[in-house]
Amino acid sequence: MSRIITLTTDFGDKDYYVGAIKGIVYSINPLASIVDISHQIKFGDIGEASFVIKAAYKCFPKGTIHLVVVDPGVGSDRRIVIVKSNDYYFVAPDNGVLSYAIDQLKDIKIFEVTNKKYFLKNISHTFHGRDIFAPVVAYLAKGVAAKEFGEKIDNLVVSSIKKVYKKDQTLIGEVVYIDKFGNLITNFTPHDLSSLRNIYVRINNCEMFQINSFYAQSKIGSLLAIWGSYGYLEISVNQGNAEKYLNAKKGDIVSIRESK
Amino acid sequence: MSRIITLTTDFGDKDYYVGAIKGIVYSINPLASIVDISHQIKFGDIGEASFVIKAAYKCFPKGTIHLVVVDPGVGSDRRIVIVKSNDYYFVAPDNGVLSYAIDQLKDIKIFEVTNKKYFLKNISHTFHGRDIFAPVVAYLAKGVAAKEFGEKIDNLVVSSIKKVYKKDQTLIGEVVYIDKFGNLITNFTPHDLSSLRNIYVRINNCEMFQINSFYAQSKIGSLLAIWGSYGYLEISVNQGNAEKYLNAKKGDIVSIRESK
Amino acid sequence: MSRIITLTTDFGDKDYYVGAIKGIVYSINPLASIVDISHQIKFGDIGEASFVIKAAYKCFPKGTIHLVVVDPGVGSDRRIVIVKSNDYYFVAPDNGVLSYAIDQLKDIKIFEVTNKKYFLKNISHTFHGRDIFAPVVAYLAKGVAAKEFGEKIDNLVVSSIKKVYKKDQTLIGEVVYIDKFGNLITNFTPHDLSSLRNIYVRINNCEMFQINSFYAQSKIGSLLAIWGSYGYLEISVNQGNAEKYLNAKKGDIVSIRESK
Repeated sequence: MSRIITLTTDFGDKDYYVGAIKGIVYSINPLASIVDISHQIKFGDIGEASFVIKAAYKCFPKGTIHLVVVDPGVGSDRRIVIVKSNDYYFVAPDNGVLSYAIDQLKDIKIFEVTNKKYFLKNISHTFHGRDIFAPVVAYLAKGVAAKEFGEKIDNLVVSSIKKVYKKDQTLIGEVVYIDKFGNLITNFTPHDLSSLRNIYVRINNCEMFQINSFYAQSKIGSLLAIWGSYGYLEISVNQGNAEKYLNAKKGDIVSIRESK
Repeated sequence: MSRIITLTTDFGDKDYYVGAIKGIVYSINPLASIVDISHQIKFGDIGEASFVIKAAYKCFPKGTIHLVVVDPGVGSDRRIVIVKSNDYYFVAPDNGVLSYAIDQLKDIKIFEVTNKKYFLKNISHTFHGRDIFAPVVAYLAKGVAAKEFGEKIDNLVVSSIKKVYKKDQTLIGEVVYIDKFGNLITNFTPHDLSSLRNIYVRINNCEMFQINSFYAQSKIGSLLAIWGSYGYLEISVNQGNAEKYLNAKKGDIVSIRESK
Repeated sequence: MSRIITLTTDFGDKDYYVGAIKGIVYSINPLASIVDISHQIKFGDIGEASFVIKAAYKCFPKGTIHLVVVDPGVGSDRRIVIVKSNDYYFVAPDNGVLSYAIDQLKDIKIFEVTNKKYFLKNISHTFHGRDIFAPVVAYLAKGVAAKEFGEKIDNLVVSSIKKVYKKDQTLIGEVVYIDKFGNLITNFTPHDLSSLRNIYVRINNCEMFQINSFYAQSKIGSLLAIWGSYGYLEISVNQGNAEKYLNAKKGDIVSIRESK
């Protein structure tokens, strides 16, 4: 059986781009099983793609190949890499798009993809998704070893992940991702807050005095904090949209301290 | 072979949510066949989801499992149910989202999903789609019997379906759904109009004097009434958008009587 | 094994329409493999659909069936056709939606789809995607011969493809498609420009003096011309949106001449 291939791109759903990738994969590997994660990553937003694939990859069976094509440097000399962890493969341009996932993985091996044997014959300047990434993941899913695609390398472009820090008695974090519901995903982990008994959360001049167990614990339309499915504290509005409620954006500061 | 699993949610297509559900399903049931119906249900709009799944479910092979996750009460004590009809399974939060489908089905059996053996080990407060619904449908598709997931129960939250009624000599119905083309789907059935010979339709101060056999029977840009694919009378504009034309919204009154 | 079926429609992703087609296909042909190309073709835009399927079809394995349902004449007497080339099948309303693909294909055979044996029993007036197209492609993928669906015919509705022409010393082309990134796809082919050494490109009072090898060769935010993945010259902005930059629309004139 073929490995599952997942797709995360900024290609949208209007054009032929995603279909082209799938067509090439099936042409090379008729048994491929392809699963879309998202094609609505904001155009060229490497950080957003990195956050989405980090949340998604663990849900898939061992052996799954995660292809991430958010690639503003397409056609330039940016590298293409295969990252192999114990359980998964990641294929992506080497531009930091795997930073969040890498932050969680141990014992990774990195290969630079250079072997044109596994590319289409004619390589366009603008669509390596079709011409390079698609055939590479198709062959990888067929069982071609990662090392066949190019040399093992020992470094990777990685963006620094912003961690919560302490200033006086206050923990300072920020909004790192906003989902389609307007939930504000912060970078606070349960570990960051483990020593606090009574919690005081502040963002954009609004405050919360507890962490909810579920949305409906607050009134409809109320702002609330809750541990979200990404593993981080989220700021939400029960049956509403916290992004609009707070006029929030990525990078907005969230501060948390012991409630007096 | 595994049963087909369909997905109807309000998760959108930007985030990792739909991908996560698919990943969990494939992890448990590698032979699963998953088909998206819609992930663009309006956020928390139980009525809209109910109408969409009612229209879609019959198109699928017998044995198909229809998962509907529009779940504003996620994390609260709302129940999760499996509804088994002669031909299909439905898995959903017990919040009325199956009302339209139930209205058409006979001999249904209802099971409350409580057996944690079929959930993920760690259950988040915000994403039961991944943590409960996905593994449940994966095991159901594998052949685990509905009764294994929890006790048979005998009631379900059901919203009343608005039916056409008669006032003097006029039949009063309403717009119950608006599709992406701006077609206004009403609750008039062929049965409702079977005794009328010449028809007069009125909505928002506009009137029509016939039911079209096809769109192009009216001029481009003209308002028209036509029997639509949902099985109801629809108000449309030929190659246009009736929602915009009439500034219409769900709940708008449609009245029909014998033409003079 | 069943042939792959691709879908290109203007149905959007909110309603049950695409799900219905898939459900019918799987009901008739449980081994079908369905791949979405696009459901975001602009409502009724035959030219846009024609351009998208032309770009996509070649990426798929031989034997693939390409279903295109952009069908403003649904329910009228417009014909439905199967076009069979050496490598692919196309199924579509006969309204010009295959014009770009046909322009590239040789030795095609055309069949008018009339055999109700391969339709659903009840045919709606508004949704032939579900009632006719879906069962037809399901049976075609199962191996039913094209001639079984209806008579061989020898003509097809074809829209003329606008070609580049010469006026004085200048080549005149136009924008024929705009993708979701705002890239302006023109109708200039490499052949059109093969005799020019130094190039001067003009569109909407902006000018370019070279064809880029890759986006990043120009500064971020700069307008550029580049050979795109469709096989045509594209006008783009590096990490930006040329449609917005130029306030461009389909049909805008692009003129190219030898640079002085």
